[in-house]
Amino acid sequence: MQAIVTLTSDFGDADGYVGAMKGVILSCAPGLTLVDITHAVPRHDVAAAANALADAAPWFPAGTVHVAVVDPGVGGTRAAVVVAARGQLFVGPDNGIFDLVAPRPDAVYAIAEPDFHRAAVSATFHGRDVFAATAAQLALGVRPAAAGPATTLRGRLELAAGNRVVHVDRFGNLVTNIAGAAAGASVRIAGRAIAGVSRTYESVAVGELVAYVGSRGTIEIAVREGSAAELLGASRGTSVEIDVEVGTA
Amino acid sequence: MQAIVTLTSDFGDADGYVGAMKGVILSCAPGLTLVDITHAVPRHDVAAAANALADAAPWFPAGTVHVAVVDPGVGGTRAAVVVAARGQLFVGPDNGIFDLVAPRPDAVYAIAEPDFHRAAVSATFHGRDVFAATAAQLALGVRPAAAGPATTLRGRLELAAGNRVVHVDRFGNLVTNIAGAAAGASVRIAGRAIAGVSRTYESVAVGELVAYVGSRGTIEIAVREGSAAELLGASRGTSVEIDVEVGTA
Amino acid sequence: MQAIVTLTSDFGDADGYVGAMKGVILSCAPGLTLVDITHAVPRHDVAAAANALADAAPWFPAGTVHVAVVDPGVGGTRAAVVVAARGQLFVGPDNGIFDLVAPRPDAVYAIAEPDFHRAAVSATFHGRDVFAATAAQLALGVRPAAAGPATTLRGRLELAAGNRVVHVDRFGNLVTNIAGAAAGASVRIAGRAIAGVSRTYESVAVGELVAYVGSRGTIEIAVREGSAAELLGASRGTSVEIDVEVGTA
Repeated sequence: MQAIVTLTSDFGDADGYVGAMKGVILSCAPGLTLVDITHAVPRHDVAAAANALADAAPWFPAGTVHVAVVDPGVGGTRAAVVVAARGQLFVGPDNGIFDLVAPRPDAVYAIAEPDFHRAAVSATFHGRDVFAATAAQLALGVRPAAAGPATTLRGRLELAAGNRVVHVDRFGNLVTNIAGAAAGASVRIAGRAIAGVSRTYESVAVGELVAYVGSRGTIEIAVREGSAAELLGASRGTSVEIDVEVGTA
Repeated sequence: MQAIVTLTSDFGDADGYVGAMKGVILSCAPGLTLVDITHAVPRHDVAAAANALADAAPWFPAGTVHVAVVDPGVGGTRAAVVVAARGQLFVGPDNGIFDLVAPRPDAVYAIAEPDFHRAAVSATFHGRDVFAATAAQLALGVRPAAAGPATTLRGRLELAAGNRVVHVDRFGNLVTNIAGAAAGASVRIAGRAIAGVSRTYESVAVGELVAYVGSRGTIEIAVREGSAAELLGASRGTSVEIDVEVGTA
Repeated sequence: MQAIVTLTSDFGDADGYVGAMKGVILSCAPGLTLVDITHAVPRHDVAAAANALADAAPWFPAGTVHVAVVDPGVGGTRAAVVVAARGQLFVGPDNGIFDLVAPRPDAVYAIAEPDFHRAAVSATFHGRDVFAATAAQLALGVRPAAAGPATTLRGRLELAAGNRVVHVDRFGNLVTNIAGAAAGASVRIAGRAIAGVSRTYESVAVGELVAYVGSRGTIEIAVREGSAAELLGASRGTSVEIDVEVGTA
């Protein structure tokens, strides 16, 4: 079977929780391909999970099932959903976790039918008892509409308005929400101005700031062989300004 | 081939040791499914590995082979064993690592036969040279009795007697060894009393202590959107008392 | 399909970058076996990646494709290469990352042909746009010579001359570049002398220094149930002396 299920969570790498989810999935759908996106999402940081999914999910083939469990509201009233978008399926809590990767879903279904969760659902581990079971059904080819009634998403990621840093990666690179700009644009952040949008880090000297169009297709700000987050004291939410100069580019 | 081999160790995520084990397994049994439970077990912390296995292994299908290598006695006199329990097989050192997941094994075999280790066994890396080779044989369908003579386990996990915290997870939740109790029970730990066993975290306000029956089926103690371990100064071994009140629940 | 692709990088475990690489590979070559060697290489530490590869890669079967992306020069002038050695293939930047695992390659090819990278290659993420795409082609059975013209490696790992610690593992064990020696040899490091090369850690008391032939086949220095790196203040590059005493062993 060539089905792929990816997993994203804030479960960390030391406990048995991710293993339990994989056991449930493989018990139901033996032989499928499991891929970890990340389990190092900071606890309850839905936006960080949304960022990781946005960077990774689009590169998987059509039909891939992405399970994401960062779920501060487990056991409460938030819905459990299957989201169909871009030819793929996303399974998790309705709390905004899919807002970046699937801002305009083709369809959303509430997970309600018995085949889509374990017979006994614990109140605290829906990752194992609901989402893993649902992912396995979908990976087996069951259509998402069988999970439960069509619905709409209510949870929303709180995204500050305007041009901002939306993600800081391991290298201290600052990923913004500004679509790739003309080469002549200049970028201002944290009191510093960066002239021009470069093609690559190597356009500047070691230790210098550089703006470029990153792998997500938006403007990123980095320090060559250093950390822009550290140099600028910037973090997720830091505002960024961009000026497209007349007559350049 | 649909066979599954899981891996648990204290090898961390930065060295090539886990990769070497996987290479040995895949060289012998191509196409099987490898699943990491965790490699972030604190060095030589057999109990932590036992906890991760107890949380994850029961969810895998019958026939799964679980390799666990937290092995302070490598190269010494502790035995290398295959343990049959709950329809699954467990491979590792005889040091108590399987005590929680398989307290009453159906059979135990010493690993002795040449097919169950590499031709040259190093004195320091039995994970690669003995346990990975054994797991591959078992995943290929060789019966565990072929590994060597039947034996009994001698290594034991040192578990303090009485009701205690047996595991602290990434969220600071305290997992106890107390089987799930009636809703009217009250729990005392570190000088604090928690009235009632709730269904979920959301039964209490953010920042409040809550006791509930966790995903392992035992009482857990948490702080909603916080860390019970931090709030209470509790860790593995902290004693817990439970009172089942007459006339409640 | 039984093909195996391993991945090694300094991308860490929190971002979506590794997932993106896997998505590209699985989109092109569904069903193959993906194995992470490590993604916890310190940023831009080519030697650390080379060490992890040297410990893990030799244990994989012939035909395995190893992708390694620690790439401070991405977007610059360093070449992207396929290296054939020991019956396996290695894909990554030409910066010395394969020096330890494949010091004398059988063949090297520059990655140049369109099938070996994505249609749009970003300037900053060749892991996804070049190396993952190349690995998928090779895993599908395309011969490496199809990647581009034969070339030679120019990047070199900077290795200090002489007998030294070349790697410190998670346990604080010091891996040296000294080939396994006679039992009567004695080792000197950081002002301390260790008499004899032992068979295993358990040859000495807990807390004592011990030298032995490690899993890589070279002399290693450890503290039984402790950290030699901490005790000796040693790190990668620390020099080591070895004396083979006449009339011993």
